[in-house]
Amino acid sequence: MSLLYSIDLFGTAIFAISGVLLAGRLKMDPFGVLVLASVTAIGGGTIRDMMIGATPVFWIHDNNYIWVIILTSLATMLIVRRPKRIPWYVLPVCDAIGLAAFVGIGVEKALSYQASYLIAVMMGVLTGCGGGIIRDILAREIPMVLRSEVYATACIAGGAIHTGLLTFGFTSNNAMLGGIFVTLAIRLAAIRWHLSLPTFALKRT
Amino acid sequence: MSLLYSIDLFGTAIFAISGVLLAGRLKMDPFGVLVLASVTAIGGGTIRDMMIGATPVFWIHDNNYIWVIILTSLATMLIVRRPKRIPWYVLPVCDAIGLAAFVGIGVEKALSYQASYLIAVMMGVLTGCGGGIIRDILAREIPMVLRSEVYATACIAGGAIHTGLLTFGFTSNNAMLGGIFVTLAIRLAAIRWHLSLPTFALKRT
Amino acid sequence: MSLLYSIDLFGTAIFAISGVLLAGRLKMDPFGVLVLASVTAIGGGTIRDMMIGATPVFWIHDNNYIWVIILTSLATMLIVRRPKRIPWYVLPVCDAIGLAAFVGIGVEKALSYQASYLIAVMMGVLTGCGGGIIRDILAREIPMVLRSEVYATACIAGGAIHTGLLTFGFTSNNAMLGGIFVTLAIRLAAIRWHLSLPTFALKRT
Repeated sequence: MSLLYSIDLFGTAIFAISGVLLAGRLKMDPFGVLVLASVTAIGGGTIRDMMIGATPVFWIHDNNYIWVIILTSLATMLIVRRPKRIPWYVLPVCDAIGLAAFVGIGVEKALSYQASYLIAVMMGVLTGCGGGIIRDILAREIPMVLRSEVYATACIAGGAIHTGLLTFGFTSNNAMLGGIFVTLAIRLAAIRWHLSLPTFALKRT
Repeated sequence: MSLLYSIDLFGTAIFAISGVLLAGRLKMDPFGVLVLASVTAIGGGTIRDMMIGATPVFWIHDNNYIWVIILTSLATMLIVRRPKRIPWYVLPVCDAIGLAAFVGIGVEKALSYQASYLIAVMMGVLTGCGGGIIRDILAREIPMVLRSEVYATACIAGGAIHTGLLTFGFTSNNAMLGGIFVTLAIRLAAIRWHLSLPTFALKRT
Repeated sequence: MSLLYSIDLFGTAIFAISGVLLAGRLKMDPFGVLVLASVTAIGGGTIRDMMIGATPVFWIHDNNYIWVIILTSLATMLIVRRPKRIPWYVLPVCDAIGLAAFVGIGVEKALSYQASYLIAVMMGVLTGCGGGIIRDILAREIPMVLRSEVYATACIAGGAIHTGLLTFGFTSNNAMLGGIFVTLAIRLAAIRWHLSLPTFALKRT
């Protein structure tokens, strides 16, 4: 569980950075930057916990999450002046690692609250994608997750494998690792080959 | 109660369709469509449950809601290519039926958690209108409910009648049916004669 | 505690007015006005309560909050036709009083749920700033709080003093008053001299 916790904090840091970078494009003050970093990093898990009744939510009694967000945000603001200098694939790949872990953790947590497999997969997707959706709403953009690439689809696939392996009698840990691996693999493939789903578009009247 | 449950699922399906149709105008991918359908259909009730402490929220331990949303969304995406072909009043009328049921259910649930009549009416309105508000936020539109027609007003009237009948000693079921009838009647009248309230507009400085 | 409760309701009224004024600029119907007033006035505290598990949230079993919002909103709609006639500093100064009280109340409540000082300060900021953020999202604006002036910073400072005084052994009441005083003083100074923090802006690629 210690490895998972590390990956969880790693994902929190990565998601916080993506919030900081968006805030930077919108010229926010330092507090706005922190808010955007926080909702991106812990927004999905927070909504999940409020829905399943796991309150106080996960970061209330574990300061590490907030410290990770604060320190990552400060560091990012100080260091990253020209995002161009970072190779383009670094952030998406880190994001994929964090995302995969978040989905696995979300599925696990929902199951520990007696959710069905269907709901558990949904909670995994929410944990992974919820923060980014709130981030985009705050930034007044139509959430990217809803429109592009194989992002949520990777989460759904990972969650399905996770619960599927449980059905086949795998241990909780192995099933989670299987699900995380699948989410990660699909995301990396989507990043590498720019995969995207066809969109659903109605003809305008 | 079985009739009410059926109407509840019917309302869920209708609200999901309205989410799918909006998603179609925004060219979302299938996952985005599902998210918009879900928040429209169960968003209001979910916020209500989180506020009154009815967690896990109502759909966590009853998969029917999510299945209804998934199947309705898929069917809508496959069938509805040209929304124009459907007579314009079909969707609003169905929406009115779902809305009226949602308000009644919301009032009932709040009362079962010892809320006052004032708060119960508010929770009824939230259950009916909350999902549509979140849908519009995600689609980056100023929520329609806040600006047009006798929509929320119908919910308030229905909720007031509902709790009013309780005061006069009607049974829980009859009071709810009375409230649902009033919400439905006002909405149908508003749709038929395009009723709307005057807006509150400040002179620009 | 009675004084604090009075200030709390006063803050609720002031925040409701700010919601009504924004609604007036967007030409909303009376219900939209009420919704915007409500989310501004009780939105922050509601999210706080849902996160720490203090459900039903604070206004569910105390109708005074909702009555204050309804009556304030109606009065504002009837009276305020030309916001220009009110001296510009009246609303910001009232807002500062409400904000300072909200932060103090938020910190107190979080501590009563065994939150750490770090989380308590965060909850104070959320209680003070959350409502305004939701108001701006509903109005489809990038939340002002995230971009301008020393607003959230005043809340953070007040919360830090509040918990700092507790560390030094001050009583709960005195620590809270100290924190409220600091938030208020910084906000008034920021209003008087138009203080603002430098923004964090990334160079566009």
